[in-house]
Amino acid sequence: MIKVVLLGAGNLAFHLAKAFDIATNIDFVQHYSRNASIDSEFNQKIPTTNSLNNLAQADIYIIAINDDSIADFSKQLTFKKGLVVHTSGSMPLNILHCKANKGVFYPLQTFSKDQKVDFKGIPIAIEVEKRSDFNLLESLAQSISENVYEIDSNQREKLHIAAVFANNFSNQMFKIAKDICDENNFSFDILKPLILETANKVQRINPEKAQTGPAKRKDQKVILNHVSQLSGEQKKLYTLMSKSIINSINE
Amino acid sequence: MIKVVLLGAGNLAFHLAKAFDIATNIDFVQHYSRNASIDSEFNQKIPTTNSLNNLAQADIYIIAINDDSIADFSKQLTFKKGLVVHTSGSMPLNILHCKANKGVFYPLQTFSKDQKVDFKGIPIAIEVEKRSDFNLLESLAQSISENVYEIDSNQREKLHIAAVFANNFSNQMFKIAKDICDENNFSFDILKPLILETANKVQRINPEKAQTGPAKRKDQKVILNHVSQLSGEQKKLYTLMSKSIINSINE
Repeated sequence: MIKVVLLGAGNLAFHLAKAFDIATNIDFVQHYSRNASIDSEFNQKIPTTNSLNNLAQADIYIIAINDDSIADFSKQLTFKKGLVVHTSGSMPLNILHCKANKGVFYPLQTFSKDQKVDFKGIPIAIEVEKRSDFNLLESLAQSISENVYEIDSNQREKLHIAAVFANNFSNQMFKIAKDICDENNFSFDILKPLILETANKVQRINPEKAQTGPAKRKDQKVILNHVSQLSGEQKKLYTLMSKSIINSINE
Repeated sequence: MIKVVLLGAGNLAFHLAKAFDIATNIDFVQHYSRNASIDSEFNQKIPTTNSLNNLAQADIYIIAINDDSIADFSKQLTFKKGLVVHTSGSMPLNILHCKANKGVFYPLQTFSKDQKVDFKGIPIAIEVEKRSDFNLLESLAQSISENVYEIDSNQREKLHIAAVFANNFSNQMFKIAKDICDENNFSFDILKPLILETANKVQRINPEKAQTGPAKRKDQKVILNHVSQLSGEQKKLYTLMSKSIINSINE
């Protein structure tokens, strides 16, 4: 059994608490939050505390708080035994200023409190400062997820950028598509199956090979026709994205 | 029973033939292909022909051939009875030059021959020139799909542009994300669950509300840090997409 103390009470902490509570090889010994009482949605069977002086002994301490607070918060962790990990995708390992061993435990997904989360399919990127901590952190990750990757701080920074493209920017494409639907009085619903299929396709096929459409066919007639119907930002993005697709073919 | 003649032997025709063959209220009376023998993958129970002079009588004739060939092909259809529809997303109804009534039957999905297709969830956009044909074409569409939309030629042109954003451009974002993974020696697999979740989320939430990430938070520190790590096209796109997201917030 891996003894775990969870520190934080945000969305990620909420979902981690639930996952740790049901994982068979995790002993979820304590849940810390700076607020006097931890959200009643949390499982009350787990002992809670709001004082860092009362932290229980554990194998792993998981900091699940805002990125910008991690450095200062970690300075308050003065114990020397155990492994302290943060859960941020955009912060390096060495942002931790605790005395204990350091690591990163980064689940790659967006979390909101009102949404059920099954950690099994969520990739967890882990990193340790001391090699001797690797098996322990890997065991913790594997106890809730089937997709565990060792990713160092440099890679994690790039992974975060890649995730911005894969998630935020593709979502913005969906937003622009919806704008076009709205502007022309037909329902965005008509595009939803296509959006699902686009995401499903790259689960099994390289996105470069999955590409279709006018730019992939270098169909300048259709491209110019589309561009002529757009203006402003939509026009600019259509042109740049089509160029990007055409450049990919020529790579 | 709606009597249907299918004209064409490409990917879409292949999948339509399969769907019509099993639909209960469709009498799939003939399959035309200009090639002497229709691909043996097609169901051979359906009578075939390679001569437009031998076309069977039907309620609906479905042209499923290349966009650029539709106009010339339709001129060869000299019969006056029945409804002739094309299946193109990017061609107006009036590209049809046949003597019979005209319409459009556009399934909004990308098709490849080696992939199973369930038409039930695929939206079909229909349009008729004569109002009296609407019920017939709607019945045909509803016999294979649960998502049938009436979309006129102007709207369909915009729908095609919206689909380019929703499918081709989001897929290009996945491609760039994969490039970043490859360049930094970690697997694109780690991003796949996030990609699926991005597409799943907009099935139930407006993409504008579904947005997360540094641009949505107007987190200039992270944005500038990311931009500083990119170059060339990736840098240009990151900047433009972040601007687009920030502009969306201010709309």
